[in-house]
Amino acid sequence: MTNKKLGGQTAALSAPVYFTAWANVAGKKEGEGPLASSFDYIDRDDTFGEATWEKSESAMQKQALALALDKCGLTASGLDWIFAGDLLNQCIGSSYAARGQQVPFFGLYGACSTMGEGLILASMALDGGFGARAAVVVSSHFCTAERQYRTPLEYGGQRTPTAQWTVTASGAAVLSREGGGPQVTHVTAGKIVDKGITDTNNMGAAMAPAACDTIAAHLRDTGRAPDFYDLIVTGDLGDLGSQLLLELLEREGFFLNNHADCGKLIFDAKKQDVHCGGSGCGCCASVLTGYLLGGLKTGRWHNILFCPTGALHSPTSSFQGESVPGICHAVAISARGAM
Amino acid sequence: MTNKKLGGQTAALSAPVYFTAWANVAGKKEGEGPLASSFDYIDRDDTFGEATWEKSESAMQKQALALALDKCGLTASGLDWIFAGDLLNQCIGSSYAARGQQVPFFGLYGACSTMGEGLILASMALDGGFGARAAVVVSSHFCTAERQYRTPLEYGGQRTPTAQWTVTASGAAVLSREGGGPQVTHVTAGKIVDKGITDTNNMGAAMAPAACDTIAAHLRDTGRAPDFYDLIVTGDLGDLGSQLLLELLEREGFFLNNHADCGKLIFDAKKQDVHCGGSGCGCCASVLTGYLLGGLKTGRWHNILFCPTGALHSPTSSFQGESVPGICHAVAISARGAM
Repeated sequence: MTNKKLGGQTAALSAPVYFTAWANVAGKKEGEGPLASSFDYIDRDDTFGEATWEKSESAMQKQALALALDKCGLTASGLDWIFAGDLLNQCIGSSYAARGQQVPFFGLYGACSTMGEGLILASMALDGGFGARAAVVVSSHFCTAERQYRTPLEYGGQRTPTAQWTVTASGAAVLSREGGGPQVTHVTAGKIVDKGITDTNNMGAAMAPAACDTIAAHLRDTGRAPDFYDLIVTGDLGDLGSQLLLELLEREGFFLNNHADCGKLIFDAKKQDVHCGGSGCGCCASVLTGYLLGGLKTGRWHNILFCPTGALHSPTSSFQGESVPGICHAVAISARGAM
Repeated sequence: MTNKKLGGQTAALSAPVYFTAWANVAGKKEGEGPLASSFDYIDRDDTFGEATWEKSESAMQKQALALALDKCGLTASGLDWIFAGDLLNQCIGSSYAARGQQVPFFGLYGACSTMGEGLILASMALDGGFGARAAVVVSSHFCTAERQYRTPLEYGGQRTPTAQWTVTASGAAVLSREGGGPQVTHVTAGKIVDKGITDTNNMGAAMAPAACDTIAAHLRDTGRAPDFYDLIVTGDLGDLGSQLLLELLEREGFFLNNHADCGKLIFDAKKQDVHCGGSGCGCCASVLTGYLLGGLKTGRWHNILFCPTGALHSPTSSFQGESVPGICHAVAISARGAM
């Protein structure tokens, strides 16, 4: 069998892997933002009917997957694999959500890059002949993330100007080897990049170098110019991280006039008081499974490079003085099947 | 392309994926146990030269991978992908270890089943034509796990009779599409199984039903009888979990006389006061990358079914009254390439 790797970090699928269906659920604040109309369900109080925030997060993943399956007339038994992840310690958001499904399960930890990691692994499995259908499900919840990473909500800590707001949302995608619609054509898996940022309230700066590394690798590996894509959309760099990314890419010789960032898209930063923008695995996952795939379906865009970014630290590593390693995975999605 | 899935949860690779090299490092207590001679490096004080236990765990992964690469004359640049995981919050053992490597990275969370999850995903990627070589690296450390999951070491908490001892070890395997030696032939990905066990000091009982589910699925999917394998070896069920597994499998009509458990193999439970045996991702990872692959290489065994088990809970989920979901992934490894 020929090697599908183009060299570097990128592989070209031998046949398209289709987004058969997608769905998302979001919290109240997200439902008051600019992308409200792209969410399938908006919860009134972010509990999703559960008694603890962690159980709420699991409920979100369950609901997002159920909605996606429903849209394509499948049940979970029609899936060969579930790839899932979240930000919680031991990824309990995902495993408790998938507990009720009778589907082989792969738990992932890629921080806020997890949607990209899941899409890459699911695409490689399906394109490699392993199964016909896979789901990728990812979530984050403001209230689970705050108390785990920062301080209890009741503490009411001040936020720095570079801080971002963890998005309460979950996105689910069902991928298939057959069908039609938006499709994955190339995948670029990220290396870990750490430029020594130690401010955990400045995730955009910590992740921008990784985003630059992966986007530059993708463009070099594929020989594509940035404007091949209608949109090169990062995960959750926010305002500051996005500025840094464009500067870093210019140094590499790439000038982007088609960059967008899910963390900037999902909130109206000023009106909604989220400082540098949204963050969390659920941020880019919910933007992909609504606004972005919706836009590919309706012909607004033809080619998108979806580039979720993640910060691979923990409170413990930060307390021990470590810097914040970043990662970014890129997935080329085409509306028309341009391989 | 034909579907490589045999139905159910199992896929047959179209060509063998070879274990090109493997290596492990272990702590002092592990180095005093029955498998001491199968470890490549035994640390004198479990610090691995670092100032914090978390940094020690990263150092272990780095060293295990470096040793494995060294054995096959490669550097990290010869790898297409690294798949890695550990038990720590946000998997920092793995991401800080891989930070220095210029290799595309997939972070996994499968609790103590992570070595199995990594071998499955790496095998599917390589067999699917995605790259020529991948590494799978997994670790656990007694001191990081105790303070994260249970109590600070200084607290000196009593251990219950069903408790297991988290192994301080890391195992690394380099997989290749070409070459020779022990090889992966089939993979069976596990579903999440939860029978309502809430005692977090009885992981064996929580994980045994998942092990039963996956082993039975593998045997049904492949049509193989248990005695096709010289050894069906679970990850870290320990004494009690192993007994439960055999009873559960009998109810499914499978009678095993070739079962072994890495958690029982790695320690002399009575002499070393580890109660029900060893546990942790590093347990089965280090037993595989020493004792088991070594035995396949020298002809002691011809076919092994390697079945790491994991408990997908967290301290938070347990404090909230949740039961412990289990998972088990199975990997069929052959010395001769019997497909």
